[in-house]
Amino acid sequence: MSSPPTPLPPTIRWVGELDGHLELLDQTRLPAARELLQLNTVDGVLDAILRLSVRGAPAIGVAAAYGMVLGVRALNPLGSAVVGVARDVSARLLAARPTAVNLRWAIDRCVTAVVAEPSLLRLFREACSIHADEEAMARSIGEHGKALIKPDTTVLTHCNTGRLATAGDGTALSVLFAAWRDGVRFRVLANETRPLLQGARLTALELHTAGIPVDVVVDGAAAGLIAKGEVQLVIVGADRIARNGDFANKVGTYPLALACAANQVPFYVAAPVSTFDMQLPDGRSIPIEERDAKEVTSFAGHPVTPPGVGARNPAFDVTPTRLVTGIVTDVGILRGPLAPAIKTAMADSR
Amino acid sequence: MSSPPTPLPPTIRWVGELDGHLELLDQTRLPAARELLQLNTVDGVLDAILRLSVRGAPAIGVAAAYGMVLGVRALNPLGSAVVGVARDVSARLLAARPTAVNLRWAIDRCVTAVVAEPSLLRLFREACSIHADEEAMARSIGEHGKALIKPDTTVLTHCNTGRLATAGDGTALSVLFAAWRDGVRFRVLANETRPLLQGARLTALELHTAGIPVDVVVDGAAAGLIAKGEVQLVIVGADRIARNGDFANKVGTYPLALACAANQVPFYVAAPVSTFDMQLPDGRSIPIEERDAKEVTSFAGHPVTPPGVGARNPAFDVTPTRLVTGIVTDVGILRGPLAPAIKTAMADSR
Repeated sequence: MSSPPTPLPPTIRWVGELDGHLELLDQTRLPAARELLQLNTVDGVLDAILRLSVRGAPAIGVAAAYGMVLGVRALNPLGSAVVGVARDVSARLLAARPTAVNLRWAIDRCVTAVVAEPSLLRLFREACSIHADEEAMARSIGEHGKALIKPDTTVLTHCNTGRLATAGDGTALSVLFAAWRDGVRFRVLANETRPLLQGARLTALELHTAGIPVDVVVDGAAAGLIAKGEVQLVIVGADRIARNGDFANKVGTYPLALACAANQVPFYVAAPVSTFDMQLPDGRSIPIEERDAKEVTSFAGHPVTPPGVGARNPAFDVTPTRLVTGIVTDVGILRGPLAPAIKTAMADSR
Repeated sequence: MSSPPTPLPPTIRWVGELDGHLELLDQTRLPAARELLQLNTVDGVLDAILRLSVRGAPAIGVAAAYGMVLGVRALNPLGSAVVGVARDVSARLLAARPTAVNLRWAIDRCVTAVVAEPSLLRLFREACSIHADEEAMARSIGEHGKALIKPDTTVLTHCNTGRLATAGDGTALSVLFAAWRDGVRFRVLANETRPLLQGARLTALELHTAGIPVDVVVDGAAAGLIAKGEVQLVIVGADRIARNGDFANKVGTYPLALACAANQVPFYVAAPVSTFDMQLPDGRSIPIEERDAKEVTSFAGHPVTPPGVGARNPAFDVTPTRLVTGIVTDVGILRGPLAPAIKTAMADSR
């Protein structure tokens, strides 16, 4: 085994003051290359979100908040005109990715801030504050969840929910990082997470860098390993959680939850309270983004399907609340029945 | 949509008489290239099986039978010495892939034949007869199963179970081909089937060549599409079926069965009776081949995981009998409870 790679640069960083720029670690290039994107325009931020250069529900929220700053700054509106410009910019950012609700949460905070005080500086401070809040939330999720991770167990996770997906330590991976820092020793199986391999590329990189033993598996292999007793806990992130506890997450999450339920393995979700969407009664109304078929039909520029064959490419699936053992949030672990627990958590976090 | 490609050459063909050779369509090169392997030695056949140039439980059985011919022919034993040589060659072939039972079934037939009549010609005739029997079985599976496919439905399948996996029309795909020939019109979702993409490469190619509409999906997406009501039937192959109906198939099959059960979608297995292993009471004792981690950690020669990160790579998983709606065999459709149905089918097929 080779030595762990050097630490990664920050996923998201605002460089300088109000006249500065946004710096993103381009996640489409990892692990092969560590390339930093310097973004000065809202178009640049939009493109980075669409191409998944920045990804993960909490990280998208923070990037979009800074995108608001860049979009409004470019037009330099004065006084109350800031509000109208901010609303225009927010509409463009909101349309970028329909499933993650943190994007809306962050942008709503920005708009509320400029409505209260129509100034670019106030908007910038709100974006910085969202960034700091996300970091604190990630830390808090880790602290609340770390006791779930028992020594000498194997934990399985899906997609990437770590430092690369958030402004801080992550959501599901924050739980693992916190347990590891406390001296708990365990192993991780990382689902590779087709089509874009965020598990194989990003989760493996983050865990390996932290010294946590990790093996990658193809997504289809997880259920069989769970059935054979090789996994003691599954923990994943969430892009949107309805008020009954149904949640959307990266495609391939729902079959993991089914396998856990069929084999009495605990299945946890880790997400900040900003992931709850109290407007949705259940998961059926969560919009599911369908992405370009090319993500499936080709790989690293090589076509894998015969010419003329298409693909379906839903980016997320919905896991019903009955399959969820608990939700690790920044205000504590919510356990079933989830609907009243979520209601209380939302009230507590306000 | 481009026009369907020209028909594929035969998956397995013996060229000439007893002094001829085995010709295999190299499946590792499809769909990009159509390369025929000319094999004159048992080592060549072993290598083709190990590298998955020939794959699919029934096709492996037929290739191994011809491998027996090549292995025995090379040593040119006389009289009763044929039996000892045949046993030596059979041991090497049996070890090639541990999960598929058809391999053992075919080799047992070859050994039984030379025990009865110790001659290379008898062995060759047995191999040809196994080949012909597999073709007939595939056709019969299609005829027995075709009424399951209803007009204007979407059928989902996993891995490749067609002409490329067998000597004939296939197992699960034979059912689809037979329904299509009868004029039933339907659509197929093909799981891409990581790590080696037999679904994206081979199933998509076979169906598209036959004019059957097919879209590829990543394996993790299937469960969500099933839950949304977008799939009316799932049908897969099997590499080994225990006598209670538990079965091993390409990794990723078990979570499909879980998703079907959770959403009341019929889940069928299609396999010849030669896939039953009456020595095994249930699926727990089916040996599961674990393949090279490199199949997961790299893609088309490109590493996808960071250096130093490993992988688990079980090639199969086991689906419990309670999740199986029925098994389409060459002697009819078996329905639950499967244990007595399997016992009767085995008796009928003798």
